[in-house]
Amino acid sequence: MTERLVVIGGDAAGLSAASQARARRGPRDLRIVAFEKGRHASYSACGIPYLVGGEVSGPQDLIARRPEVFRDDLAIDLRLRSEVTEIDLDRRAVAVHDHQAGRRYWEPFDQLVIATGGLPHRPDLPGARAGGVYGVQTLDDGIALLRALETPEPGRPRSAVVVGAGYIGLEMAEALVRRGLEVSLIDAGEQPMGTLDPDMGALVADALRGLGVKVFLGERVEGFSESGGRVVAVHTGSRRVRADLVALGLGTHPDTALAEAAGVPIGGTRGIRTDRRMRTATEGVWAAGDCVETFHLVSRRPVAIALGTHANKQGRAAGINIGGGYASFPGVVGTAVSKICEYEVARTGLTTAEAAEAGFETVEEVVESTTRAGYYPGAREMRTKLIADRRTGRLLGAQIVGREGAAKRIDVLAVAVWHAMTVEEMTGLDLSYAPPFAPVWDPVLIAARKTAERVERLGGRD
Amino acid sequence: MTERLVVIGGDAAGLSAASQARARRGPRDLRIVAFEKGRHASYSACGIPYLVGGEVSGPQDLIARRPEVFRDDLAIDLRLRSEVTEIDLDRRAVAVHDHQAGRRYWEPFDQLVIATGGLPHRPDLPGARAGGVYGVQTLDDGIALLRALETPEPGRPRSAVVVGAGYIGLEMAEALVRRGLEVSLIDAGEQPMGTLDPDMGALVADALRGLGVKVFLGERVEGFSESGGRVVAVHTGSRRVRADLVALGLGTHPDTALAEAAGVPIGGTRGIRTDRRMRTATEGVWAAGDCVETFHLVSRRPVAIALGTHANKQGRAAGINIGGGYASFPGVVGTAVSKICEYEVARTGLTTAEAAEAGFETVEEVVESTTRAGYYPGAREMRTKLIADRRTGRLLGAQIVGREGAAKRIDVLAVAVWHAMTVEEMTGLDLSYAPPFAPVWDPVLIAARKTAERVERLGGRD
Repeated sequence: MTERLVVIGGDAAGLSAASQARARRGPRDLRIVAFEKGRHASYSACGIPYLVGGEVSGPQDLIARRPEVFRDDLAIDLRLRSEVTEIDLDRRAVAVHDHQAGRRYWEPFDQLVIATGGLPHRPDLPGARAGGVYGVQTLDDGIALLRALETPEPGRPRSAVVVGAGYIGLEMAEALVRRGLEVSLIDAGEQPMGTLDPDMGALVADALRGLGVKVFLGERVEGFSESGGRVVAVHTGSRRVRADLVALGLGTHPDTALAEAAGVPIGGTRGIRTDRRMRTATEGVWAAGDCVETFHLVSRRPVAIALGTHANKQGRAAGINIGGGYASFPGVVGTAVSKICEYEVARTGLTTAEAAEAGFETVEEVVESTTRAGYYPGAREMRTKLIADRRTGRLLGAQIVGREGAAKRIDVLAVAVWHAMTVEEMTGLDLSYAPPFAPVWDPVLIAARKTAERVERLGGRD
Repeated sequence: MTERLVVIGGDAAGLSAASQARARRGPRDLRIVAFEKGRHASYSACGIPYLVGGEVSGPQDLIARRPEVFRDDLAIDLRLRSEVTEIDLDRRAVAVHDHQAGRRYWEPFDQLVIATGGLPHRPDLPGARAGGVYGVQTLDDGIALLRALETPEPGRPRSAVVVGAGYIGLEMAEALVRRGLEVSLIDAGEQPMGTLDPDMGALVADALRGLGVKVFLGERVEGFSESGGRVVAVHTGSRRVRADLVALGLGTHPDTALAEAAGVPIGGTRGIRTDRRMRTATEGVWAAGDCVETFHLVSRRPVAIALGTHANKQGRAAGINIGGGYASFPGVVGTAVSKICEYEVARTGLTTAEAAEAGFETVEEVVESTTRAGYYPGAREMRTKLIADRRTGRLLGAQIVGREGAAKRIDVLAVAVWHAMTVEEMTGLDLSYAPPFAPVWDPVLIAARKTAERVERLGGRD
């Protein structure tokens, strides 16, 4: 008998799962229906700031695979504008609201993948629903923002406020700077990029100011003024900032409403709990992507991290397992990268505060270096911070702030964190060297050396 | 009593050793004399092609530390144009020929660092000493080449032949293309970059041809025609190639004449044998840099690899040990990187042939991808080849040929090789992702996935 797989969510995690399951089981063996509540599926949400900024020529460029490809080539019945409103685990069926046709129905399943993604934090504040206030999560959000920016004069927005100075906030700030708007960035934290150490975050703040962005830190947004239904200003406890347009980049949290209502166990991070194979605690129910919690390999604690790359890997693992194979998602070390104009920012592992929280005593070292040999054209400055266990010298985390060519070096550090290398061991690593690519001591090696020296001075002292 | 350290060779290895020894022991405890036979010390030999090509504005830019810095700040008695002609281990002294003053003397030592570097392969062929035939090893070589290129018209060279298509040959070809010369590249091997697999080397050959370089492979240089003492053409078995200028980029071999004559044991690779701390088999005699052999962590065999980055690390380890500390050089995984114009080339670990030679049976996979998200401006194509153990899936080696942003990714693969990761394990690595930096599946992860699939299909079959 044909088994029935239902997938809730038509993005990275859901459609990776569907595709991988299909790759291992033909349509007679496995029927696959995927429900996407939005009008678009299989797109790069991470590309939205670049759509808004104009680096990407149009929304279609962000779509990895068109719906027809799923239907025609992969025999995956992808249904757009189809919102799953309930999971009934006893009946083994989901309730679907087809917004296109305006009808509701039940779709039965044997296997279920929950890939409901993340819900943007949207402040419940006066004026938050005014015209001109945009989320930046879905492709439709991006398209709406793009339209606003392309409004014919004299209605075109001149000033913008980005609320939230995390990755998405920074990327939106870049996009709006590129569009020629006067951009302000507001964050309740004392630094942009709250996922960096304060000293590294301060570098990012300096860089933002250097780009002409007004940065208001430690200020919480309290509301929005509107005029004629459109936003005109953002209010914090300390000021009123003019805004023809507001982008909300406050991050997301796992969207687990459906799972929770159905009784699928949720973890302490509010993400759906799964095992390494992406099985939930409920038989035949899998979950993947921004809606799940995963395991941090350094802190050894569950974390919920919304990132397309994890979603893809988790979806793939779920799909291979559903397809009868065996694959697992091993967890994360907290790697992330972003850029704003010519500045690049990256991190991996734990920050100093996260390490302390996880019970480590640390030593830290910050080194300045260049991305290439100092004498080679295009050598750019970069700052690398390493965080190591004080006693053993084990690398716990790393952060980079620099210019072109700086940030992708975080990957070497991510693999070093992955293997729990000590900074002393790292000094021996055989990293590539030629003047156009690195100084003779690669920045990663300089940082490892300096940190190892600090561990030698401070480490192991009781 | 003050101990006496003598260092033979004033470049990366020798002066790293001297500086590190000094950092741990003051001048009253350790007297340090360093002899350099050339006119320059402490320079980046790897930067010479960029000096010739014009990216670097002058020879002084390649000098890391001026001689005065060693003398005045570090109390290292660095003597230029001072050639050590003999090591007498019984007398514990070296014979020095001071070319400046025209005198010879003996300098006693308690500890000795041999950092004599590499000797360029220079073909013993008719015409090889003609004017216009240049080595590219020393800063003086680079300066001479630079002068030739800046000869006032009408004497300025128009055509150049680069002999040897390894890293240095490629970099010289780029330099000469940038100078506007008609460039030919001749190599006895069937591909450029003999340290890559043939299929990856072929990509480099295509790239070279695309840059207008004439590439003659499988042709051995048999001699040089001269006219009035200056080279006018290069002869191979198959052709005569016009050349107003010839650059010899045939690589180097360890310069061990002094060590050998003194009875310091030499290894099978013709490099000086040392232990992990860079001690030779002779008490109180250390060696570091291009003149030594080191240990390949994958093949588990000795290798001699001339690279500034190894020289620095080895010199540092020797210096720390001489200074009374403890440091070791763990060996190499054969990482290298190079660029020619907009093309980038990198390798790590073993090639397919090297793996076979070391007793591995391998599977290989080549994947094409882009350096950034496909829709992000500046995404460039790159090709990644992975070589894995057929049975276990252990990553044995990797090669990358691509455009800007491609090659430095080899470092992630180098760390994976270092840790003997399997390609399956690598698919889970938490590498950084954002559209300006990578596709959602980083090229390294795509390559790991594809290779893992191949291992699954072919691996373990007997």
